[in-house]
Amino acid sequence: MHLVWGTHWLALVTVLALIEYMVLGVMVGQARGRYKIEAPATTGDPMFERYFRVHQNTLESLIVFLPALWICGLTLSRRGAAVLGLLYIVGRAVYARGYLADPKGRAAGAMMTFAANGLLMIGSLIGIIIHW
Amino acid sequence: MHLVWGTHWLALVTVLALIEYMVLGVMVGQARGRYKIEAPATTGDPMFERYFRVHQNTLESLIVFLPALWICGLTLSRRGAAVLGLLYIVGRAVYARGYLADPKGRAAGAMMTFAANGLLMIGSLIGIIIHW
Amino acid sequence: MHLVWGTHWLALVTVLALIEYMVLGVMVGQARGRYKIEAPATTGDPMFERYFRVHQNTLESLIVFLPALWICGLTLSRRGAAVLGLLYIVGRAVYARGYLADPKGRAAGAMMTFAANGLLMIGSLIGIIIHW
Repeated sequence: MHLVWGTHWLALVTVLALIEYMVLGVMVGQARGRYKIEAPATTGDPMFERYFRVHQNTLESLIVFLPALWICGLTLSRRGAAVLGLLYIVGRAVYARGYLADPKGRAAGAMMTFAANGLLMIGSLIGIIIHW
Repeated sequence: MHLVWGTHWLALVTVLALIEYMVLGVMVGQARGRYKIEAPATTGDPMFERYFRVHQNTLESLIVFLPALWICGLTLSRRGAAVLGLLYIVGRAVYARGYLADPKGRAAGAMMTFAANGLLMIGSLIGIIIHW
Repeated sequence: MHLVWGTHWLALVTVLALIEYMVLGVMVGQARGRYKIEAPATTGDPMFERYFRVHQNTLESLIVFLPALWICGLTLSRRGAAVLGLLYIVGRAVYARGYLADPKGRAAGAMMTFAANGLLMIGSLIGIIIHW
């Protein structure tokens, strides 16, 4: 089946965001060894907990990001949604770097993620209304 | 691209469920300040933990809800799926209110969520079989 | 609306993976009673924590699995993606059995899941490039 023209940007952004998330997951696995936190524990070392929370928080945001990316992209603008998707991906990297250095340093990346998701949600609402 | 007729109901329910989830997430952030739980900790105050678990449990249910809403909606009935989607959204609000008042009070909302997701899953299975 | 031919395999695999996930969730609820872990706590008994982590880890992998299953399936091969989807579902069962017996026993199932998701991601990238 041929994809509708332009959706390859949305698909590519989706895959890139998931690769980033998988990398953050692998980092949690490595941190288990480094900080000697054996499953099923997820606490016990503040540095391990940073890795764990970065991954978890990214999961928490992906459940909003992925549907909003596609609804906004399919109803309003594929390119606009893809650009906001890149903002999301960069925001998650900034979040991870900031959080791992110092939990207080997570605000900038968190705001980028929130802005990307918020705009995608607003775009989705506008797109839905336009097509009603 | 024009959306297939009727999918705007599914898209709208999706966005509403995600807005509700984002509000629950903002409430976790506010609870961090109020109960003085600094990241990366997610435990240490029973009231904070209620807010945290409400958000987490909603994430746990969204991963079932969103695919089931769309598969049931596209294969069986868009309006039927959208109505069950509203039951899910109301159920999550009842769950949050009940849980925040007392963890034992989360049963009613949990059952509404489970009923909505369960019926959407059954509807998805029926819809898939019908289209086989 | 008629589904595009062959997508019923992807829809069926999606529903089966979600049923498996819901069963793991019900097992967490039962474990709360058995090991006397009252909400909002999610720690306090190593056996309860195994059930809890099996469910959580499955959620962590579903957010990758579902989009990759559909992008790979729609752009490259519906049957190939569905077969990898079955590998994922079996991998999650192996993971749960292994983890509940002993947290060290989770490696085999984790590797099956990771292989299925990794191949679906690679297939998605190839499919996206082919359709560019």
